Amino acid sequence: MDDEKESLVDQALLLLEQKDYSGLRAFLGELMPADINEFFEELPEEKLIVLYRLLPKELAAEVFVEMDPDRQEYLIRAFSDAELKATLDELYYDDTADIIEEMPASVVKRILNTASPDMRKAVNELLKYPEDSAGSIMTTEFVRLKKNYTVQDSFDLIRHVGIDKETIYTCYVTDDKNHLIGFVTVKDLLLAPLQRLIEDIMTENVIAVNTLDDQEQIAMMFSKYDFIALPVVDNEERLVGIITVDDAIDVLQEETEEDFAKMAAITPNDTEYLKTPVTRIWFSRVPWLLLLMISATFTGIIISKFESALAALPILTAFIPMLMDTGGNSGSQASVTVIRGISLGQVEFSDTFRVLWKEIRVAVLCGITLGIAAFGKVMLVDHLMMGKDEVSWTVALVVSMTLFLTIFCAKMIGCSLPLLAKKIGFDPAVMASPFITTIVDAVSLVVYFVISRQLLGLT
Amino acid sequence: MDDEKESLVDQALLLLEQKDYSGLRAFLGELMPADINEFFEELPEEKLIVLYRLLPKELAAEVFVEMDPDRQEYLIRAFSDAELKATLDELYYDDTADIIEEMPASVVKRILNTASPDMRKAVNELLKYPEDSAGSIMTTEFVRLKKNYTVQDSFDLIRHVGIDKETIYTCYVTDDKNHLIGFVTVKDLLLAPLQRLIEDIMTENVIAVNTLDDQEQIAMMFSKYDFIALPVVDNEERLVGIITVDDAIDVLQEETEEDFAKMAAITPNDTEYLKTPVTRIWFSRVPWLLLLMISATFTGIIISKFESALAALPILTAFIPMLMDTGGNSGSQASVTVIRGISLGQVEFSDTFRVLWKEIRVAVLCGITLGIAAFGKVMLVDHLMMGKDEVSWTVALVVSMTLFLTIFCAKMIGCSLPLLAKKIGFDPAVMASPFITTIVDAVSLVVYFVISRQLLGLT
Repeated sequence: MDDEKESLVDQALLLLEQKDYSGLRAFLGELMPADINEFFEELPEEKLIVLYRLLPKELAAEVFVEMDPDRQEYLIRAFSDAELKATLDELYYDDTADIIEEMPASVVKRILNTASPDMRKAVNELLKYPEDSAGSIMTTEFVRLKKNYTVQDSFDLIRHVGIDKETIYTCYVTDDKNHLIGFVTVKDLLLAPLQRLIEDIMTENVIAVNTLDDQEQIAMMFSKYDFIALPVVDNEERLVGIITVDDAIDVLQEETEEDFAKMAAITPNDTEYLKTPVTRIWFSRVPWLLLLMISATFTGIIISKFESALAALPILTAFIPMLMDTGGNSGSQASVTVIRGISLGQVEFSDTFRVLWKEIRVAVLCGITLGIAAFGKVMLVDHLMMGKDEVSWTVALVVSMTLFLTIFCAKMIGCSLPLLAKKIGFDPAVMASPFITTIVDAVSLVVYFVISRQLLGLT
Repeated sequence: MDDEKESLVDQALLLLEQKDYSGLRAFLGELMPADINEFFEELPEEKLIVLYRLLPKELAAEVFVEMDPDRQEYLIRAFSDAELKATLDELYYDDTADIIEEMPASVVKRILNTASPDMRKAVNELLKYPEDSAGSIMTTEFVRLKKNYTVQDSFDLIRHVGIDKETIYTCYVTDDKNHLIGFVTVKDLLLAPLQRLIEDIMTENVIAVNTLDDQEQIAMMFSKYDFIALPVVDNEERLVGIITVDDAIDVLQEETEEDFAKMAAITPNDTEYLKTPVTRIWFSRVPWLLLLMISATFTGIIISKFESALAALPILTAFIPMLMDTGGNSGSQASVTVIRGISLGQVEFSDTFRVLWKEIRVAVLCGITLGIAAFGKVMLVDHLMMGKDEVSWTVALVVSMTLFLTIFCAKMIGCSLPLLAKKIGFDPAVMASPFITTIVDAVSLVVYFVISRQLLGLT
């Protein structure tokens, strides 16, 4: 699929070089907006306006929505008022609101002045809602029916207004106070006799969300209930908009990428990696590295406390990395599992004890397996093969016991911290590998030294 | 939202205790299939069949699709042939195929014997496609139009066959050889005059996928192009099925969870965490822990090679955890970023040099920042505050130089390994934190000891 895309871009670039604009227009007309945008991204900004003017009005607007804010701003500044108006007229209200949020004040002013009064009103409404709320991703364009309409009336209405509506496949039924009382799908309408009343075919049991509900929870509802649209009501249960499945998918992906970033100790950032300036990447990574480095000081302190022990039996140092890494890995296995469970709404704080009990048993199993493996490995590799006499079977025992206890503590910490974070209103995703590792390092070292003191009689 | 759900389940359980079956039927009738299933999951299996029989036929089938395989199998065994037939008749072909894939042979046999000839044929077709292919997630039920149909004909056809079709909002136009030549949306049909010919309103530039295309790439197309359905063609370009947006969302989520698992060194497993048996969790985690533990042997070997140096200046040991962790974190920041870029199709092997060049600059910035911070921290905390005289400014210099080089190597390894893995056909997701950490540990130790030997004149 990618190669195909590549070659498309090349063909278009060729036509451009040949200044074959009519050919280019025909060619672009065949592409999807997202692909045209990818092609545009290969171009220097100054070429942009020329090509943009080649596109048919509706397609042009669809491409415009796909562009990154910098290029949108560049185009808006390059537009004549007429061109700006033409573009805005083709945009959906929610897309316009999204674009405005990214623009500097001067551009916003120009957009709002050029927009139709309806759009201006709708956009101002949409801009009121907090980021990540249902209101911020909904559209105010949808088909509104009354229960005393016939199927025929409804089709006439859809034909009349439908062309401007983002989705017409689910029509919502409201009473005279604009309260949501049901919905009918176009499928229902098509399969019903034309004279049937909406109230006879509508589904009254309609799931709606509030304008202030969290967008991630709503996106999850789409995947759970297989909706293609979901109505949004205000605090008085009045229907104010709908959220469409394509926006829900975008939210799901956005939130997932944020989690991946946080779990790798990176501040999330919504621009594509290759398009993000080096300094911004640096800035999104370095604070976490600093924080984690400083917190690693404790492990250092612990080690220096046991300097004498290490001096007495230097070989003990050789096992430190293995013990710390295994602890870190065991911990993050548990934490990542629980973090995802929380994000997917499968694990809640009330499940803490079920989770702990599960992880205790898993930890014991993993601990035993690795403990035995480690004992064997130390005796076989270090003692026999490498012939290190100082690696006695007691040392091997110390290592494998430490490993067992480290894994146990790691799993406990790993599974409980995300739940705790969630409880106190922190983002569980931050409690992933890096933090768990730092904590588990300290724990494993203490365990290691305490056990070696006991079994090896070191001071 | 969750509390709401909880209380629903409680109400239903209450009605059940009161044996108020008519009340229960009415109550369940108001719920979404997914919610009914969640309620059923609270119940012992033997109660299942009683309640299932309370549900209206269509709803019952929708709930059945939501259930986990064990309960589906239990129900099928409990069904009379008539009940099984009634349920199957309500199922979509692709759902039936999915269910069959999870059932033991005896149950499969019974299902196929009971199913209608059409369903049997369709299901057998669907089962032929490899897992994770377009064919395995498509449905063979869709509306097929001819270009010489009128809009009126099309509506009649939709009314006639539509009720059984999973999605009717996009209708596909095929020629007499069944080749895909275009599509019309119901929106197009509604907005066109009834006597208009399909060939006049259909969109000829239709994006289709092949039955063998990878499901993840296809799911990405949905999010990129905002499709609600996508046609699937065979190698002869004949239309064989469609993929609907709800299945695409499921694929997106499935693949995401697999990546999260792999990146935490866990073998992916598609059952909910709290429902997964302890032994299976253990089995999905322990092999990776073992592998990583064994590979950590090298770091051990490196340390013992430098035993004398550590013995001469024991304080050096205290900085090992901090150096290793910072290296690991820097490395996974780079690897996770690149891994996600690859999954999202934003980074390809051909970008390797752009990626390296970006990471080189980020690494230098991070390295300098942390190097300076570390120098200050060591001099301030360890030297002054803790008054360790052995921590000279040379030691501090050794630590900060090691940190700089470690971060640099870590970022290089972290960003290049996933691309390399992709190139040689490995899953890049496996090249995440755990593996990067193990490799970076070894690197950081070598750097550490070489530098200390040079600057501190240790042998």
